[in-house]
Amino acid sequence: MNDVARLAGVSIKTVSRVVNDEPAVHPETAARVLAAIEELGFRRNAGARNLRRGSTTGTLGLIVEDVGNPFYSELTRAVERVATAFGRQVLTGSSEENPDRERELALEFCGRRVDGLLIVPAGDRHTYLGPELRSGTPVVFVDRPPGDLAADTVLVDNAAGAAQAAAHLAAHGHRRIAFVGDSPEIHTARERLRGFREGCARAGIGPEERVVVMREPGEDSVAEPVHRMLAAPDPPTAVVAGNNRVTVELLRALGGRERRPALVGFDDFELADLLDPPVSVVAHDVGLLGRTAAELLFARLQGDQSPPRKVVLPVRLIARGSGEVAPA
Amino acid sequence: MNDVARLAGVSIKTVSRVVNDEPAVHPETAARVLAAIEELGFRRNAGARNLRRGSTTGTLGLIVEDVGNPFYSELTRAVERVATAFGRQVLTGSSEENPDRERELALEFCGRRVDGLLIVPAGDRHTYLGPELRSGTPVVFVDRPPGDLAADTVLVDNAAGAAQAAAHLAAHGHRRIAFVGDSPEIHTARERLRGFREGCARAGIGPEERVVVMREPGEDSVAEPVHRMLAAPDPPTAVVAGNNRVTVELLRALGGRERRPALVGFDDFELADLLDPPVSVVAHDVGLLGRTAAELLFARLQGDQSPPRKVVLPVRLIARGSGEVAPA
Repeated sequence: MNDVARLAGVSIKTVSRVVNDEPAVHPETAARVLAAIEELGFRRNAGARNLRRGSTTGTLGLIVEDVGNPFYSELTRAVERVATAFGRQVLTGSSEENPDRERELALEFCGRRVDGLLIVPAGDRHTYLGPELRSGTPVVFVDRPPGDLAADTVLVDNAAGAAQAAAHLAAHGHRRIAFVGDSPEIHTARERLRGFREGCARAGIGPEERVVVMREPGEDSVAEPVHRMLAAPDPPTAVVAGNNRVTVELLRALGGRERRPALVGFDDFELADLLDPPVSVVAHDVGLLGRTAAELLFARLQGDQSPPRKVVLPVRLIARGSGEVAPA
Repeated sequence: MNDVARLAGVSIKTVSRVVNDEPAVHPETAARVLAAIEELGFRRNAGARNLRRGSTTGTLGLIVEDVGNPFYSELTRAVERVATAFGRQVLTGSSEENPDRERELALEFCGRRVDGLLIVPAGDRHTYLGPELRSGTPVVFVDRPPGDLAADTVLVDNAAGAAQAAAHLAAHGHRRIAFVGDSPEIHTARERLRGFREGCARAGIGPEERVVVMREPGEDSVAEPVHRMLAAPDPPTAVVAGNNRVTVELLRALGGRERRPALVGFDDFELADLLDPPVSVVAHDVGLLGRTAAELLFARLQGDQSPPRKVVLPVRLIARGSGEVAPA
């Protein structure tokens, strides 16, 4: 950043604005900053070529669950943007929530000598990456922590977000609240459930008033258990959905019902504001998540030797209406 | 395919089913087919390593406009799936609808010796790829044709789809119909406009009854010209939206209005069925688009020397309600 600012003759803040694609930078200034980044990127590439193991491939490896899921495609785009600014290309792969596939992809990327790896881990065993880390390939874990490895990690505050969702529903009079989440094998799903329970407890809602439905590992849909839950006597009047996929499945499952429970989803999604009622969500900045992770990786590539860092990004509740439906 | 079928002891149809992720294949059979693909993939990789310029990198380059757009992320996922079946990894890049960036990415990928390129072209000048094609790197153009190069191309039937949209609106009594499209610099935008005009003409709707709004090149939004169009005397009672981004912008722009024009969008999108009214669209199979392009590329990698092919995939109108709103 310092070098870029110096070369472009602008402040570090301006460089940051350009890299983060924020408005309010004069196009000419932006062009100068991008030219400086490119110039330095090429120099760095050329310089780095003679460092680690004799060569750099100028590529990063990015492993997500499924690049077809809008959450991950936005993340991919953010990583791509930072990589471009540093003159790198991005190799992508989808693990399909399969730890073996994640490992296979990661080792394959390492075999192709990527300069660094960004991983949304499917599993919780990562000692296999130890040799790569030690030999100088930086690895940053994104959205979920590694299982048994000390490495840089960027997360969002899952528990706090789910607690906020529960508090919001409780504040609108709900006592019987359900949490419909992804497979408990997934870190974020467990953390959000934990936050949900904490939020309920703080609102004086006991375990006997809560309903929890978690997707079976490998299962496609939560529609069936949700229908079962709503058909049971004394059904919940409000639901917290554990992620963007679950929210959409819930909306589809509830579509035909006359009385629909109040709803707060985790993860924002396009068109949430145009649905009827507009869907309240716990939002976090997916672009920021990808950007922060990629910037952390480049800091390592530029020689940052400090101990592994854990960055937790904030979340915020966007109340649009679906969480404010009163209990029946 | 033949080799895989032979090695796995199944029919070619079954191999095709497994590769295309269709149901109705016994898991054990599927596993056998995948093992055969992997086995042959490795052999082919090893064999090919000594062919073209001495080595293969086992990677494909994929250039789209913006991997953060759900249309392109679905395309990416489909390409990734075929690549995985053939033991290849995918390098992705977003051209941001900028021909210079497309060229830069394509040449950079070629510099990294990708085995082949899949390009959603931003520009219409592609002679720069001639040397690569001649030296044996196959290139397949996806969703839009190349400008001045004979190369494999996979498209969808844009004109027919837009004509269907116009016919659908005319059938519900609309005479003043607008087309709101992307920048006329984009091939698909021009083709859809052409189809829209044909569809109107066939329904007896003359040029004086049609309104056309095309996004300015490089402009972000169509909201402003749409508001202008609807504020003019005798505004259109129905709109055809030129792609998924335009549809979403239109929905947002129309959100606050009491009387909304009937609407048919081009490209299906998640939640279209859950909006009020549910949004009718001209749909095409994005997964099939990516798969077809990737399979064409692999056919070339396996030695197919036939002349460049142009594949046009069908589209279909999904009537959900928003196109059936009667004119005011």
